[in-house]
Amino acid sequence: MKDIYERALEKHSEWKGKLKVEPIMSMETMDDLALAYSPGVAAPCLAIEKDPEAAYAYTMKGNLVAVISDGSAVLGLGDIGPDAAMPVMEGKCCLFRRFGGVNAIPLVIAEKDPEKLVEIICAIAPSFGGINLEDISSPRCVEIERALIDRLSIPVFHDDQHGTAIVTTAGLINALRLVGKKPSEISVVVSGAGAAGSSIVKLIRDLGVKTIYVFDSKGVLRRSASDSYSFVKKELAEMTNEEDENLTLAEAMKKADVFLGVSVAGILTKDMVRSMNPDAIVFAMANPEPEISYEDARAAGARVVGTGRSDYPNQVNNILAFPGIFKGALEANATKITDEMKLAAARGIASLISDEELAEEHVIPNAFDSRVSRVVADAVAKCAMESGLIRNL
Amino acid sequence: MKDIYERALEKHSEWKGKLKVEPIMSMETMDDLALAYSPGVAAPCLAIEKDPEAAYAYTMKGNLVAVISDGSAVLGLGDIGPDAAMPVMEGKCCLFRRFGGVNAIPLVIAEKDPEKLVEIICAIAPSFGGINLEDISSPRCVEIERALIDRLSIPVFHDDQHGTAIVTTAGLINALRLVGKKPSEISVVVSGAGAAGSSIVKLIRDLGVKTIYVFDSKGVLRRSASDSYSFVKKELAEMTNEEDENLTLAEAMKKADVFLGVSVAGILTKDMVRSMNPDAIVFAMANPEPEISYEDARAAGARVVGTGRSDYPNQVNNILAFPGIFKGALEANATKITDEMKLAAARGIASLISDEELAEEHVIPNAFDSRVSRVVADAVAKCAMESGLIRNL
Repeated sequence: MKDIYERALEKHSEWKGKLKVEPIMSMETMDDLALAYSPGVAAPCLAIEKDPEAAYAYTMKGNLVAVISDGSAVLGLGDIGPDAAMPVMEGKCCLFRRFGGVNAIPLVIAEKDPEKLVEIICAIAPSFGGINLEDISSPRCVEIERALIDRLSIPVFHDDQHGTAIVTTAGLINALRLVGKKPSEISVVVSGAGAAGSSIVKLIRDLGVKTIYVFDSKGVLRRSASDSYSFVKKELAEMTNEEDENLTLAEAMKKADVFLGVSVAGILTKDMVRSMNPDAIVFAMANPEPEISYEDARAAGARVVGTGRSDYPNQVNNILAFPGIFKGALEANATKITDEMKLAAARGIASLISDEELAEEHVIPNAFDSRVSRVVADAVAKCAMESGLIRNL
Repeated sequence: MKDIYERALEKHSEWKGKLKVEPIMSMETMDDLALAYSPGVAAPCLAIEKDPEAAYAYTMKGNLVAVISDGSAVLGLGDIGPDAAMPVMEGKCCLFRRFGGVNAIPLVIAEKDPEKLVEIICAIAPSFGGINLEDISSPRCVEIERALIDRLSIPVFHDDQHGTAIVTTAGLINALRLVGKKPSEISVVVSGAGAAGSSIVKLIRDLGVKTIYVFDSKGVLRRSASDSYSFVKKELAEMTNEEDENLTLAEAMKKADVFLGVSVAGILTKDMVRSMNPDAIVFAMANPEPEISYEDARAAGARVVGTGRSDYPNQVNNILAFPGIFKGALEANATKITDEMKLAAARGIASLISDEELAEEHVIPNAFDSRVSRVVADAVAKCAMESGLIRNL
């Protein structure tokens, strides 16, 4: 049997593009053209000239997201460049529509300098209701996202940072529900100090987690060592490891209730899992091979285990997050996607599993659960309206 | 009865966007997702990393056009800005799909400096198979289009310049067929020295027209006066009025066989039309009111009259050109849209009217003639292949 890569290549060659762009209305008569195009189109143009916010009433902008990448960190393939990033961006746009009802278009940009990239994205931003950054290398991605959030008054969201973090947090909320622990009481080890790790740490802190140790490839992050860190790691060091302990991963795991991995395959041993506190929770999300396999983690006594894989229970799949997040932000006319909205999204995802359904093998809803994007969108929209970070339309 | 502008505003408010972006394939199972997205999508990514031209085999790029504007010269409304230009760009994208089967997305850019605009468009170009510039003010539009053609190896086409020129030339070809004159023998007055006028002059010269007088708002262009001209007018002066004559419009019309107007309403009088050579041809294309009304031009003795209006015969409608031009250029994998291809498109449009059908009131095909885009696309593709300006895929 052909493997998935061979089949995917064949399919892509057959599809020659995974998206189609079509008018929503009839264009069969001169009157149709006169309404949708010249001369009638002058009326909405003039209305928007008078008030730029009227673009939300008369154009597709309010339900259009740009999926933007510079191709610098595509999947696990690294810096393969903008052309080669296009299949991923197209795929992402398909998911936006399929799972969130949001129009999205792929946009790859041949520019690596963060400042110039920000300039370019700001210049094209008037076309869009939101911007989803994708597959941009860390720590540039953090810098670029922050600058865009600062300069634009539309939702900007880097899915590689926050998508995984939101679904992980949803899974953690339910796993803690199951084992009966409170966020404030647990000790968490985060493996991976890149884009996703950074967002996970912020989100679980917002959830109430107080004790966190973050590891990069060189060891635990310590505030006393932060002179040598990137600004992202420096921030992480400030937020974690309060006592500035010098621990190995094995030592940190001995007092851990939770392991959250967004790093590399195989770094977590069965012995480490065995040494964790009772009712251990392990989310090993390295792709395509996790930090420890589902079977090994369970065999070593972890009570709840999640991975990034669809062939095991509790898949941490960011399809659960980004379509609903943008749907909700756009529906509420939010000007930003805040940390509060991300946490609200995580709580929304978690809420879909009832007490009766909650089980070791079911702390995260299925990617095809049709309720997800609606629940996430409502949670995000409610949070946006409460925060007041919405347009006055 | 409500006027067209009132109705169009209502419709736009109902539509909230005239386009939808959708996946072309099923996304109902985990296997669907694994093929279109992660992990399968890595296969086309790697193939494109190896050879960027493989993007034409595995992505939508080869059938995707960006409709780009800075909002500096929208319809007849002037510099209304990028936000307010969006309804036009969306409408244009609808026409691309409806009339050419080409996917197109609207992109408005908040940048007025031509050099920076070129930089931005070059940076985002890897996403697209072609670029249609729209509603950019003259002479900046000419400068921007040339720089992009120079720097990019995909079709770049400014429709306001060439679309009208191509359809005008098609109409002229058929009008000359009807009255039995040769291009090389006629004298042509062009009123309007902006983007469209400039492209008309070049295209009818390529058709074989030798005697041309171009008028701007101040009078006839003369090479002896070209120090005060923009570079576009300077070029026009070099190509026309060979004897450097100082003529009024009325004087030039006395020896003219053809009047081509892309200027302002009402500047052509019945007396001027009466003074033209026998079998006079008048294309008065100012919008929404022509340089002389259809009725007045006919009453003054013009044998063939065309306007930009759909409520009179011989509408010069660029829907006849741009969808087929891009369709053909993309199908042939052309790297440029050359003057030869534009003339081939004009001849293709003209060819749709047989000798039997050819009549004073029918020198230009109807906008809804379903044969048009195929014939134009084939003419452009054939020309591209003969020129060798195509990718080796």
